[in-house]
Amino acid sequence: MRREILIVERVLKAHEEWAIQTRRLLAEKDTYCLNLIGAPGAGKTSLLEETLRRWPGGHRPAVLEGDVATALDAERIAAVGGEVIQINTAGGCHIDAHLVYQAMRQLDLAQSRLVFIENVGNLVCPAGFDIGEHAKVAVSSVPEGADKPEKYPRLFQEAEIVVLNKIDLIPYTNFSLEHYRASLAKVRPQVRLFPLSCTTGEGLEDWLEWLRNRKD
Amino acid sequence: MRREILIVERVLKAHEEWAIQTRRLLAEKDTYCLNLIGAPGAGKTSLLEETLRRWPGGHRPAVLEGDVATALDAERIAAVGGEVIQINTAGGCHIDAHLVYQAMRQLDLAQSRLVFIENVGNLVCPAGFDIGEHAKVAVSSVPEGADKPEKYPRLFQEAEIVVLNKIDLIPYTNFSLEHYRASLAKVRPQVRLFPLSCTTGEGLEDWLEWLRNRKD
Repeated sequence: MRREILIVERVLKAHEEWAIQTRRLLAEKDTYCLNLIGAPGAGKTSLLEETLRRWPGGHRPAVLEGDVATALDAERIAAVGGEVIQINTAGGCHIDAHLVYQAMRQLDLAQSRLVFIENVGNLVCPAGFDIGEHAKVAVSSVPEGADKPEKYPRLFQEAEIVVLNKIDLIPYTNFSLEHYRASLAKVRPQVRLFPLSCTTGEGLEDWLEWLRNRKD
Repeated sequence: MRREILIVERVLKAHEEWAIQTRRLLAEKDTYCLNLIGAPGAGKTSLLEETLRRWPGGHRPAVLEGDVATALDAERIAAVGGEVIQINTAGGCHIDAHLVYQAMRQLDLAQSRLVFIENVGNLVCPAGFDIGEHAKVAVSSVPEGADKPEKYPRLFQEAEIVVLNKIDLIPYTNFSLEHYRASLAKVRPQVRLFPLSCTTGEGLEDWLEWLRNRKD
């Protein structure tokens, strides 16, 4: 039994070690890193597209795109001129710290002071892993329903801030922002919430301001 | 090394064994079982609510509700008069076969010829597990975007049929049904697709007809 316990410890330490290596690399380049986590279709890639489109000049953010399969998201980021690397997990439900380290070493960090990691679309598994980021951002969206924070508490508890995307769809659904705020407060009182729409642009300025202040 | 390999085998066999036990239990009661899998907020619970509301009499379907936390979904099913048991995974990203067997034994299968298992909201992990169902149903939705089948191929490859929910939101998004069909065809040509809306009721009759034919 002792031998097996040692093996488990070694695996955990390896993951931690890669996360530490990534943060060291980021520190050397004075770069801040956010890990975007949310359900499939919450609009994580759209949020990054709009962030890059509206970036006010200077060092533009770079992106690591995590997906189970395809390079579709990386192509979208490249189309708006972003420095991007696609990470494919080949079926895996989250990005692991070693893949992030490998990809981060390929990025031209001299050109960026901010790196986004877009995790695999999954509201459960990615929340439990430190992959070398400085903070996690929970990205949820109106059509998912107002009860999601209490139904998937861990991500909302781990996240530095919470984005609620697709607020332009509120009139066409039974979504209640008040209900969503109450659900969020049950699992994570006082976390900062950014309601926004990547379609209309509403709320994006607050998010961009937070990013600018955050990365400095 | 040999000892560790044996342990892994034993765990896998245990999972398979529970799935076999569940199917044996279902066969004894002449009951058909569908495993609903989709992203958080795809509308799996709404689909079950509308299915129960519109059920034409006779043996009503029963439901096993799987969630990371809370009994919110089971409460919704109970509110429309459904026989329901909540399975909480305490953070786990999918329901396992043993939990299903335990819950299935508690259901009054004499009253139902059809049991739905609503899996944890997750487009990745639940697709890889046989939990004793007869078939998997992929539940996706318009706001998630038209590229989801190719981005999360395994579920769409494993599913007997595919539901595309929230078609009432198509006019308010950039979603293209043609694009969705093309994405689905890339990973699973010729699978039957049910576009529907639980809000307007459009398309639900086809789904109900499939269920009625399927379970007999």
